Amino acid sequence: MVNLGVIGLGRIGQLHTENILKHVPEFTIKGIADPAIDTLSDWVNGLPIVVKTHDHHKIINDNEIDAVLICTPSDMHVPIIIQAAHAKKAIFCEKPISLDIKEIKQALDVILEEKVKFQVGFNRRFDKNFMALKDSITQGLIGDPYMVKITSRDPAPPDLAYLKKSGGLFLDMSIHDFDMARYLIDDEIVEIYANGENLLDIDLKDINDIDTAMISFRFKNGVLGAIDNSRQAVYGYDQRVEVFGSLGSISAENEKINTVESYTKEGHQSQKPPYFFLERYQQAYIDELKAFYDYVTGKREVPISGRDGLISVVIGKACQQSLKENKPIQVSWK
Amino acid sequence: MVNLGVIGLGRIGQLHTENILKHVPEFTIKGIADPAIDTLSDWVNGLPIVVKTHDHHKIINDNEIDAVLICTPSDMHVPIIIQAAHAKKAIFCEKPISLDIKEIKQALDVILEEKVKFQVGFNRRFDKNFMALKDSITQGLIGDPYMVKITSRDPAPPDLAYLKKSGGLFLDMSIHDFDMARYLIDDEIVEIYANGENLLDIDLKDINDIDTAMISFRFKNGVLGAIDNSRQAVYGYDQRVEVFGSLGSISAENEKINTVESYTKEGHQSQKPPYFFLERYQQAYIDELKAFYDYVTGKREVPISGRDGLISVVIGKACQQSLKENKPIQVSWK
Amino acid sequence: MVNLGVIGLGRIGQLHTENILKHVPEFTIKGIADPAIDTLSDWVNGLPIVVKTHDHHKIINDNEIDAVLICTPSDMHVPIIIQAAHAKKAIFCEKPISLDIKEIKQALDVILEEKVKFQVGFNRRFDKNFMALKDSITQGLIGDPYMVKITSRDPAPPDLAYLKKSGGLFLDMSIHDFDMARYLIDDEIVEIYANGENLLDIDLKDINDIDTAMISFRFKNGVLGAIDNSRQAVYGYDQRVEVFGSLGSISAENEKINTVESYTKEGHQSQKPPYFFLERYQQAYIDELKAFYDYVTGKREVPISGRDGLISVVIGKACQQSLKENKPIQVSWK
Amino acid sequence: MVNLGVIGLGRIGQLHTENILKHVPEFTIKGIADPAIDTLSDWVNGLPIVVKTHDHHKIINDNEIDAVLICTPSDMHVPIIIQAAHAKKAIFCEKPISLDIKEIKQALDVILEEKVKFQVGFNRRFDKNFMALKDSITQGLIGDPYMVKITSRDPAPPDLAYLKKSGGLFLDMSIHDFDMARYLIDDEIVEIYANGENLLDIDLKDINDIDTAMISFRFKNGVLGAIDNSRQAVYGYDQRVEVFGSLGSISAENEKINTVESYTKEGHQSQKPPYFFLERYQQAYIDELKAFYDYVTGKREVPISGRDGLISVVIGKACQQSLKENKPIQVSWK
Repeated sequence: MVNLGVIGLGRIGQLHTENILKHVPEFTIKGIADPAIDTLSDWVNGLPIVVKTHDHHKIINDNEIDAVLICTPSDMHVPIIIQAAHAKKAIFCEKPISLDIKEIKQALDVILEEKVKFQVGFNRRFDKNFMALKDSITQGLIGDPYMVKITSRDPAPPDLAYLKKSGGLFLDMSIHDFDMARYLIDDEIVEIYANGENLLDIDLKDINDIDTAMISFRFKNGVLGAIDNSRQAVYGYDQRVEVFGSLGSISAENEKINTVESYTKEGHQSQKPPYFFLERYQQAYIDELKAFYDYVTGKREVPISGRDGLISVVIGKACQQSLKENKPIQVSWK
Repeated sequence: MVNLGVIGLGRIGQLHTENILKHVPEFTIKGIADPAIDTLSDWVNGLPIVVKTHDHHKIINDNEIDAVLICTPSDMHVPIIIQAAHAKKAIFCEKPISLDIKEIKQALDVILEEKVKFQVGFNRRFDKNFMALKDSITQGLIGDPYMVKITSRDPAPPDLAYLKKSGGLFLDMSIHDFDMARYLIDDEIVEIYANGENLLDIDLKDINDIDTAMISFRFKNGVLGAIDNSRQAVYGYDQRVEVFGSLGSISAENEKINTVESYTKEGHQSQKPPYFFLERYQQAYIDELKAFYDYVTGKREVPISGRDGLISVVIGKACQQSLKENKPIQVSWK
Repeated sequence: MVNLGVIGLGRIGQLHTENILKHVPEFTIKGIADPAIDTLSDWVNGLPIVVKTHDHHKIINDNEIDAVLICTPSDMHVPIIIQAAHAKKAIFCEKPISLDIKEIKQALDVILEEKVKFQVGFNRRFDKNFMALKDSITQGLIGDPYMVKITSRDPAPPDLAYLKKSGGLFLDMSIHDFDMARYLIDDEIVEIYANGENLLDIDLKDINDIDTAMISFRFKNGVLGAIDNSRQAVYGYDQRVEVFGSLGSISAENEKINTVESYTKEGHQSQKPPYFFLERYQQAYIDELKAFYDYVTGKREVPISGRDGLISVVIGKACQQSLKENKPIQVSWK
Repeated sequence: MVNLGVIGLGRIGQLHTENILKHVPEFTIKGIADPAIDTLSDWVNGLPIVVKTHDHHKIINDNEIDAVLICTPSDMHVPIIIQAAHAKKAIFCEKPISLDIKEIKQALDVILEEKVKFQVGFNRRFDKNFMALKDSITQGLIGDPYMVKITSRDPAPPDLAYLKKSGGLFLDMSIHDFDMARYLIDDEIVEIYANGENLLDIDLKDINDIDTAMISFRFKNGVLGAIDNSRQAVYGYDQRVEVFGSLGSISAENEKINTVESYTKEGHQSQKPPYFFLERYQQAYIDELKAFYDYVTGKREVPISGRDGLISVVIGKACQQSLKENKPIQVSWK
């Protein structure tokens, strides 16, 4: 039995808590913490959890708790990681570890010293479609990969308050795609070039952000890549990947909300993709916690390491620099 | 809070029990019963259920239990329905209610007298794809329906022991399709003609059954229909429906196990459908119980009535007669 | 060099003439004949054809002409076939050979006596999609066939004048599907049951015809079949075939007018099928004449024989009888 | 009646000649010229063309010839354009006009002075799929465009002799995609960044060329673009375009060689795209000549102008510079 504490009870903290209670009974949630827990009484009260506190130190210092999920705003991740590592907890931390590379390295150093387990929350690696894609590549279906292309578009932009703290499109959205590209190609991006624009009605120029991006990059092994991102695809969450290689091309296409199709005078109609990440990655969020359980209990290697978490931020920062300086940037990922 | 008893703990009884525990917390399972419950201790022991008995009368006679799920072999359905009705339980009964039409009518009479709620387990009506198809038809997308075509093929035949008790292909397999056709067209089948063959390696002639069927029928409103069934589609569970009408055609296609597609020298490959009904109708099984909850608590009309259960058996019997006499049979469904 | 005469210059006669001039230069059209040729001067005048006559005997009696295409109304087919056979011409005749089975047999007898080549115009056998389907079946992709299902729906009904002479839906539309089923399964239909309705706004009851049909049949080898027909599919010409067997299922789906797809708030849109047979079977009409050339010049066996033409009419007549008597009819095809 | 001369009888010159003879009878080909015409006697002899010469001046100086198709190797395009312009011929010239920008400008100046009509052979603009895509964008289906993405991959690399003269991947392959992007977005590319690699077994480094490219660019109006190219897609000619905008996304997908699909134990199979450009763009090659006829006879504006031909080369050169200097290049297209 592994006892768990959840720190941070925003949208993703609540999602993980509910997923564990319903779908990952291998974990027992012993405690949850959030400074604003008093405002969440509707949700908190019914939960079969012993410790419900506004002070996350009560989780960290609880000797019965073996592992923590860190779901706070990202600027609080690193201090809590360090505390949890010193308390010898296994740690699952949401992405990005931090928007500050030095801080991330500092956290990873402590994790290394304390020899605690650490997993980063790139949920998409657990999507069944992307996993099947990865499996086929590993089995050699398309031979040597030559290109990877990722489309990742949100259905609608978040509110301005969120956007201001998000770290910008590259560190908030594209970061998932950097991780996916590295996961599928199994190599490191060495150079990246980013184009970005403000094309939507929302105006992000004041906060020095963009709403649309086209990113071009190269792996050490010569594989070429492209990512396109938009904050607003009116038809729903667009999540597609294609990898092209010496023996063919393989892709993971969008899911559809159902399989109904029709033919009318207007043509052939079928369905939209699921609306957003909660719908599309519902099972992936569960499966990343099952993987965390297996990792914590020694049944598997780390699914997504601290280094993975670091590199994706390094790449995101390189994109920011590329956009600012209008040139390709070498990614120094050591 | 609605207290539930589950009678019969074979594959489908266990499935419903687990679905309710995990996904339909509005129900509390107070008791489960099966004559062979002692052989199920591995599964039974961990369950948070108060009453675990080999005698279903303990469920029927428990005043705290409001509703029962009847999941026994079908030849025991009717006696238990009658007992449960006299005990004023709301009743959910698996299909077919019985293979004997007189018995079904007898059960329905008691249900009527006792004024208890009664729902039949045609799970496919709760499949999100077929529900969306039905919604579109209701909204007039294809105008007046002219034809309904149903393909329903199992991935592999069950064992001979099951087949002997199954009632035959028409009452075991096609019965779902009769219900689907009636549900989608919202009218009654008045005449039906069935063709059947033994084409598979299994030999069902000795038990007077077939493994492949092509059924042709007509509704009162003139809509024409066709159903094709096979006990063995080696590529997986094939479940498709098309309705053609004055303004177009609409279909529910097979789901696929994931969205991965590839292009190689051999052509374009994509995925198979989910293997069988447990995979394909996983959510539908949950949703039919949620519907039963809503029905029991007065939030909705009966989802699938005793009459629906009766008529599907009447149609199946007409198919058997049609095959035997090699002629179309009038369906007398009053 | 093979010299050709075209007899009958309605829509299909003109189509064949133009196809040969443009796409089958192996044939030289020496003559064309139609009683109403004077009314066609706009079309006829420019044609590089030596003999243009209202009297088809001038074609038949022209010793330089090796082969004739008979494209007259079907009630004139048999007399002209007989004349052409006596004149030792190779004969391509549009379907149906006749609506009268005795007449067809009489024509086939003369063909046999005169030892002339004879091909019937079931153009669909030359559609690249159906040919590829047939090839895959022959190569064993789906193992032993168990079922064949054909959907064949016109975009709009022809005018009443045409319908009155058409022989009815079974002999005008379904006849193509009977031939397709026989071609794909490579066996003979032994029993057939037909359902039919008048569901469209056009009223065909007065001419003893139907606009919608659902046909169910059985081959000698046990394969089961279904054909559905409608005179009006508002989304265009719907031409699909599926064959299901021991190793899988194979289908030829509708073509689409182009490959454009879109995602909008309303869902996923793609294109309609080509409007009607002239668009869908454009290349098939050319390829059946190339096959006729190869047959005439001894490069291949008869593509579609007189017997094929006879049997499809026999089956259509059986459907008419089935609908009238409301029972399955044995097909006597010898 | 418009009299035509064809200059250059390589693969594309022969293709145009045959297409006109069969499918564009509005043109009369009066003459054809190629220095090596003597080696083509098998093909040339049967042609119903009056003038067959090794000296293209005989075409240029023939007063009865109104228009010429220039299909020579590209290094001969400009001198012949200039001669033909002085001779007041309407000119259709294959792409690229030249690999030398100064030469192109010189040719366009003469065309302007002589006021002759001039069309460049970007055949893909006449592909029915891309035309339908363009129409939908023009009609506002996807609102304001935000991104354009083009995949263009050949099935197999040409031989080294061709490659050496090709101008390199950007000017031989990508040039079509630059034109397509400009056509669809109806605006000018202002900056471009190109990545390229040698990933195939062929080694193009010695001839300073690449076999795989990923190109990223920006239009004046802010639309972002990406093109990916490969010399070798083993599954066939991969030609796809997607345009994403404020109201949705639209794409032209690959055609397939037929519509046959199958389900087997291995999964769901469908067909490959047509093998290469001759198959995929068969009709587009015809339609660009029909458009040329309409242009020559004043029925429409210039379909693809000299300026279009110039700009695509300017963009290709910018890609070469970008790859060499590893930075984005401003496109100066005036």
